Amino acid sequence: MRLVIIGGVAAGMSAAARARRLDRSLEIVVFEKGEVVSYAACGIPYYLDGHVPSLRDLIVATPEEFETKRGVQVRTRAEVVKIAHSRREVLLAGGERVRYDKLILATGARPDFHGIEGADAPHVFTLSTIEEARRLKSYLDAGKAVTAVVVGGGYIGLEAAEALRARGLRVTLVTDTHSLLQYEDPALTSVLESHLRSCGVEVVFGTRVTAVENNAVAGIRCDLVILATGLRPNVELAADAGVEIGRTGAIVTNERTETNLPGVYAAGDCAQTKHLITGAPAWQPLGTTANKMGRVAGSNAAGRRERFPGVAGTAIVRVCGLGVAVTGLSEARARREGFQPVAARITALNKARYFFGRPLTVNLVADRATRRVLGGWVAGELGVETRINVIAAAIHNEMRLDEFAYLDLAYAPPFAPVWDPVLVAAQQLEKKL
Amino acid sequence: MRLVIIGGVAAGMSAAARARRLDRSLEIVVFEKGEVVSYAACGIPYYLDGHVPSLRDLIVATPEEFETKRGVQVRTRAEVVKIAHSRREVLLAGGERVRYDKLILATGARPDFHGIEGADAPHVFTLSTIEEARRLKSYLDAGKAVTAVVVGGGYIGLEAAEALRARGLRVTLVTDTHSLLQYEDPALTSVLESHLRSCGVEVVFGTRVTAVENNAVAGIRCDLVILATGLRPNVELAADAGVEIGRTGAIVTNERTETNLPGVYAAGDCAQTKHLITGAPAWQPLGTTANKMGRVAGSNAAGRRERFPGVAGTAIVRVCGLGVAVTGLSEARARREGFQPVAARITALNKARYFFGRPLTVNLVADRATRRVLGGWVAGELGVETRINVIAAAIHNEMRLDEFAYLDLAYAPPFAPVWDPVLVAAQQLEKKL
Repeated sequence: MRLVIIGGVAAGMSAAARARRLDRSLEIVVFEKGEVVSYAACGIPYYLDGHVPSLRDLIVATPEEFETKRGVQVRTRAEVVKIAHSRREVLLAGGERVRYDKLILATGARPDFHGIEGADAPHVFTLSTIEEARRLKSYLDAGKAVTAVVVGGGYIGLEAAEALRARGLRVTLVTDTHSLLQYEDPALTSVLESHLRSCGVEVVFGTRVTAVENNAVAGIRCDLVILATGLRPNVELAADAGVEIGRTGAIVTNERTETNLPGVYAAGDCAQTKHLITGAPAWQPLGTTANKMGRVAGSNAAGRRERFPGVAGTAIVRVCGLGVAVTGLSEARARREGFQPVAARITALNKARYFFGRPLTVNLVADRATRRVLGGWVAGELGVETRINVIAAAIHNEMRLDEFAYLDLAYAPPFAPVWDPVLVAAQQLEKKL
Repeated sequence: MRLVIIGGVAAGMSAAARARRLDRSLEIVVFEKGEVVSYAACGIPYYLDGHVPSLRDLIVATPEEFETKRGVQVRTRAEVVKIAHSRREVLLAGGERVRYDKLILATGARPDFHGIEGADAPHVFTLSTIEEARRLKSYLDAGKAVTAVVVGGGYIGLEAAEALRARGLRVTLVTDTHSLLQYEDPALTSVLESHLRSCGVEVVFGTRVTAVENNAVAGIRCDLVILATGLRPNVELAADAGVEIGRTGAIVTNERTETNLPGVYAAGDCAQTKHLITGAPAWQPLGTTANKMGRVAGSNAAGRRERFPGVAGTAIVRVCGLGVAVTGLSEARARREGFQPVAARITALNKARYFFGRPLTVNLVADRATRRVLGGWVAGELGVETRINVIAAAIHNEMRLDEFAYLDLAYAPPFAPVWDPVLVAAQQLEKKL
């Protein structure tokens, strides 16, 4: 019995490790077209600013470790160019054919430049691969870049802006939308924008970049450009083999991470899952989702029946010392999805002032009809992760606001105020329902 | 329409504030036998060690502020000595009678010395009131105490030990049980014990203190004694009036915080509520519970129909830099309650190492039959509150382990590892179920 996994980063290696643990006899082969596997791409911004001393520190395990410690065959620089599912076979560049019994698609995603001209110029970078990170670090270390433009206001754009500021560059962030973090909420955008400005990052909204010039982007002079304009799932291989692609552009999977082809699973950035609130297809290309889906795919390929419940849309980012996190639906999106959202926003200390408590803003959204918690965002220097996780757990459980408001959360002065900020937000929101 | 509230600390003032907000016309009178109202007793340890400069900083609002800003009449040094419910009247020491339409009992709790002889000696203290705090601070400031014994291993005993160590005293903590934090778990006790020892606090288990001598307790020489031997609810007044007392020793309340007498509510340290897992009566004398129950009592006394769902048993404490938190049932208690508990314990970094991630231990308990999450504890220098709150939210929602294991929690290197430690604990626990 042979399990073939295409792609050796978060989802693929998570699947391989899990399948091996459940079935010692399974033959597992991973094909990765890059040179390294199992690396933490999320750490790249912190390699650029020096927190992470070496790219090696981002590699969780080497192919050799997978082979010797786990008995997983890992073939790097091995590109699968075709899947012939009727013969249960993958075809490699070079002509080699490898049979499979089970197949996991973990082909990831790639930067989507939306047709920006000049994206391949030498002073233009993404933060998507180890190779790009190495190239950008050398460019920065050479010390010739003074001004930078970051294109894109998602979490990668924000982390890139932070890293470049930390390296002393003058940074302008340009986005074609009027929001940041892909979370439509004017108050959140405003909190982030003013914080970025106070840290010396200029923000330009509503500007679509169509070309990178030699020393300027959208009329802003710069020596360095980071394109963080989003990702596109790598689905071509799957689509050619008859795997169904969903309306998000990613591979359709069910709760067991199965595709429409029997014995073929998909996980991670190439796969679509379900949004926990709307039940609609969701594509959340994040490391945490990739690891979880990969684990479920590995379990099921090894004969278990595990379930990946879906995503709440939780994301967190640190930008120049400010933590910002979102989960669930923004008020605007909830309205579009047919809810009757009501929102409340409060600012409170995250813990006692004498324990260096700092202001924390919590925005909570609930549905007027069902009183169900739909989403929220949290921003502050300290304690952001604590609060967003409570809201995310509430979303998983379809919790109503009146229950949420009396959650028995941990209280002591070094950790929280007697009324936790999320509960204060819930009280304010109850008044409006 | 007059609402009388007996007791002006957390529950009482929370009730008063809430009732006023909901009903502008209600006459609200609070009787408090002490001299201050609305103070944060939880801050007392941090007044002793100097984090809180003045006792005034622990007072949330003065009687005058309640009167002028909220129109709540607050009478301090006013002791209610009798409730004549048939006449809807309270009798004050001094003979004054005051009629009520609604009555909220928020009489709190007092230290329970369990008959320890010599508890009233001048070098013996509790951490229960502002007056005691002032007396203890003076004693410490006089600089004559060199060695101290803390009797009791609950969170107040632990906080007292920390405060006294911070003041430079040699401290021994003595408890009659074989666990700490009233959470029967040998591993948790061991983590706490070795941390206390490493911080210079000796711990003596299984020793019942029956008397305080002039310069020793249980044979341990000391200049100063803190009695943190637990609390006893102040229910005598209520019991005399025919209010039902439960098997926890506190006043029986339903989900609306109503007692058995119509129009009479109880909240806070004098009242019993429901345990969210067992459904059994629970008495959780903590500031956070008092505030919540007080708010619900205030709402309902003002004509609303609000519900206090009960408690999960969440508590958190910082001891010499280590955060320790518990929620739900320990494995031992779960077994006694008729569950088939299975537990798993893991240690992982709370976030990326290059963001000063520190080891965090998570112990998770689930029921074999239903796979429901029953409880857990978390210990570490950083990130404890984040994880315990997720487990507490799971308990509120009767979450099963297989759903819990795929919670969409916030991930980015400055905040968490890609697999949050609570999820790693859930994975380990799943293997045992």
